[in-house]
Amino acid sequence: LFSEKDKEKMQAAKRSLCVIGAGPSGMSVLYHLEKLRLQGGRAVGEMPQVACFEKQNDWSGLWNYTWRTGTDEYGETVHGSMYRSLWSNNPKETIEYPDYTFEQHFGRKTPSFLPREAIRDYLSGRWNQYNLKPKVTLLHSVQSVTFDPAKEKFSVLVKDLEQNRVLDPKEFDYVVNCSGHFSNPNVPYFKGIERFPGRVVHTHDLRSWREFAGKRVLVVGSSYSAEDSVLQSVKFGASRVISSYRTNPLGFRWPESVSERPLVTEVGPSDGGGTEGWARFADGSVEKIDCIILATGYLHHYPYLAEQLRLRGPNLLYPAGLYKGIIWLAGGNNRLMYVGAQNQFYSFPMFDAQALWTVRYLTGGIQLPSSAEMDADTKPWLEREAALKSHQEAVDLQTDYTVGLAKQANYGFDLDASQLFYKWFDSRDEDITTYRDGQYVSKFTGKLAAPPTTPFMSAMDDSLSTFLANGKDE
Amino acid sequence: LFSEKDKEKMQAAKRSLCVIGAGPSGMSVLYHLEKLRLQGGRAVGEMPQVACFEKQNDWSGLWNYTWRTGTDEYGETVHGSMYRSLWSNNPKETIEYPDYTFEQHFGRKTPSFLPREAIRDYLSGRWNQYNLKPKVTLLHSVQSVTFDPAKEKFSVLVKDLEQNRVLDPKEFDYVVNCSGHFSNPNVPYFKGIERFPGRVVHTHDLRSWREFAGKRVLVVGSSYSAEDSVLQSVKFGASRVISSYRTNPLGFRWPESVSERPLVTEVGPSDGGGTEGWARFADGSVEKIDCIILATGYLHHYPYLAEQLRLRGPNLLYPAGLYKGIIWLAGGNNRLMYVGAQNQFYSFPMFDAQALWTVRYLTGGIQLPSSAEMDADTKPWLEREAALKSHQEAVDLQTDYTVGLAKQANYGFDLDASQLFYKWFDSRDEDITTYRDGQYVSKFTGKLAAPPTTPFMSAMDDSLSTFLANGKDE
Repeated sequence: LFSEKDKEKMQAAKRSLCVIGAGPSGMSVLYHLEKLRLQGGRAVGEMPQVACFEKQNDWSGLWNYTWRTGTDEYGETVHGSMYRSLWSNNPKETIEYPDYTFEQHFGRKTPSFLPREAIRDYLSGRWNQYNLKPKVTLLHSVQSVTFDPAKEKFSVLVKDLEQNRVLDPKEFDYVVNCSGHFSNPNVPYFKGIERFPGRVVHTHDLRSWREFAGKRVLVVGSSYSAEDSVLQSVKFGASRVISSYRTNPLGFRWPESVSERPLVTEVGPSDGGGTEGWARFADGSVEKIDCIILATGYLHHYPYLAEQLRLRGPNLLYPAGLYKGIIWLAGGNNRLMYVGAQNQFYSFPMFDAQALWTVRYLTGGIQLPSSAEMDADTKPWLEREAALKSHQEAVDLQTDYTVGLAKQANYGFDLDASQLFYKWFDSRDEDITTYRDGQYVSKFTGKLAAPPTTPFMSAMDDSLSTFLANGKDE
Repeated sequence: LFSEKDKEKMQAAKRSLCVIGAGPSGMSVLYHLEKLRLQGGRAVGEMPQVACFEKQNDWSGLWNYTWRTGTDEYGETVHGSMYRSLWSNNPKETIEYPDYTFEQHFGRKTPSFLPREAIRDYLSGRWNQYNLKPKVTLLHSVQSVTFDPAKEKFSVLVKDLEQNRVLDPKEFDYVVNCSGHFSNPNVPYFKGIERFPGRVVHTHDLRSWREFAGKRVLVVGSSYSAEDSVLQSVKFGASRVISSYRTNPLGFRWPESVSERPLVTEVGPSDGGGTEGWARFADGSVEKIDCIILATGYLHHYPYLAEQLRLRGPNLLYPAGLYKGIIWLAGGNNRLMYVGAQNQFYSFPMFDAQALWTVRYLTGGIQLPSSAEMDADTKPWLEREAALKSHQEAVDLQTDYTVGLAKQANYGFDLDASQLFYKWFDSRDEDITTYRDGQYVSKFTGKLAAPPTTPFMSAMDDSLSTFLANGKDE
């Protein structure tokens, strides 16, 4: 069909793509590139050449649990923020891939809320369908990304962690940044914290909740991370849990051992050499506490990206500066994409729609409007987010965003999971300790989830083997 | 004396120097440069122009305690490795600056073993003599150092952490690397550690010992850090402490709650969801434990230095590749120096001698022999270290090194503290729980230290204010 010369030309014309990170976002990019290639929908010559660099020892990003904290064995900042005994807080029906359902993966119905290892197993199953592991360069950390507007090329410096060697700069036509934004902790200071006698830990560095058994725990924060910290503390035997919020209390019907207080204003020891810790709150109340868990969220942090390429700011459903939530507008001449940079109700399916959109764009299926139009396109989203009044409205925003993106990318499935999220909100309001025992209907199989073998609050074993064994008993 | 033209020429001839880190090593470099300048011993034109970059919020390196762990508020790796209630483990008489004694600083005699804040206060006192604070650029992190052999210049990239901005590259004729080597933890893996139910923490990330009250603690390691971890655990009420060693037991006469075991081979939970942790040791014994403290030391880690400039390898009294323990031989054409890169008995005074040696070299007072001669000069030291048979011999090596360096640099004081170290070894062997209550004679004042107000094992208050108040009572 093609002469050797033709093939060489096509090879030379191939655009090169650097994917940073092999978590669910980066893997969705690889997945859709491979899916498209296998479908033969595009001439092979039009498919970009891809390199994917992952600094961890395996794929799946945050879902790749590490017992390490701080720095890893190569001196790199530890990426992992997950703790032992973490179970998804969304029903699996809201994070399901339409073309690879949980039922397909496990060969049976499973409960709606799964332990971390089961979710990771599911992710790996989808990626293994296309044998994507060899496409990921593991234990390679991206050190710097700069863009030369004249050449329209990125220069990427990558460190081989095992060799402890920065490789020669590599040139790429496109970069997709998929390194995630739940790894760089936001750690506020409170007066006296440097003298507090007990442990002070951000959830990023927390691995086991068992150490809080019998302790009086202060949890600072008021988002999902704080809520789960309260629950996990209770589950593993904390004698007392105080939840401190900045603006609004979490407001759930908590077990008796839990109480809520406004923002902590000062902490300290009972005296210079005191063994007892205490915290004072904005309402003037003082409580004795043994340890402080900072469930205070994360900050966008991409220090390897040149300044004009770097997304900053708070964790939003629609971060400013990204056309369609993907194309970086302030630099890189529409050649830098972010996948998964949003605050998330939708997670895996949203990343997947973003990834397919990105692949369509890279292979010529989606054309960009002018810079002014792209910039203007983001504005209504930012205004809408600024005006949000409820969780439900927040879900609606992300539903509209995700469904719209999927439509433009010809994704082929309806990703609207808003009804599932509404039900989830209701069940949390009803009883925060039992919401993970709820059962939801999969949009894609039409089936109701299995009931949990053990209620979440008494399920102490989070291993995949136990999860799989439970299934066999049914 | 000089015409304007002369002055301009001299200015142009000035060599520029980048000091990385404002801990005791970096500050000694600034101190001796300033001392020399004030003495007027060299024409001002011959003094190098100096920039000192420190990524922390203040000077004093490790002695600048931070309650943070993991990453700091700027996303940088936390430098600090010190915990609350840390007291020097060397008598202060072995870390005393001859030209600024502890008695001079505190205005009275003090005990031989001081809490961290008192030592930091002492360090600041010496540096404040010359008003050195304005010479340190705080909250600036060095990102990369490369050397151009043709231009004989270093290019240094520095990040302004508060501005979150990498500054334009700066050129320097010389670099002194003083960033320390007790910040990047060596964290070994043990089978099962990812499923161990309790806390696993390297001492780098440990801040408060109080959390171990009532716990069964496993301390892994067999150097000074491990020994102090055992002591601190006992001091703050651990119910049981097991010390696990790789080669030789620490071998002290421990309190009853302490026992020693060979290397841990596996750890785990009592079952899949078990609340109890256990550890198995190389002798086959198994013990129930609640938490694991990895007192397993640190690794040289200078990721910002170009590869050919980077010291690697284990923590040694005489690391290979450094002429006089200072001049880096493998790159940088004798323009890169390391101060404080040694494993340490001597600390502040050794850094001080190295710093003065460096300043003499920079200002023409010390000439280097040929590369071959410099390389040959290091060999006997490496052989001597490899053949060490006792702590005493190790001290002797560092005594000979430090005294020799001081002599060549015309330091003006005899730094030999070997007799103090021998006495210290003896007192530790006698009773490891009371060695910090010992009193030593200062070489430079000739006076015996004050007795401690409270024995170390019952001194629960490590604050400077209490330390100063105790002195007033006497």
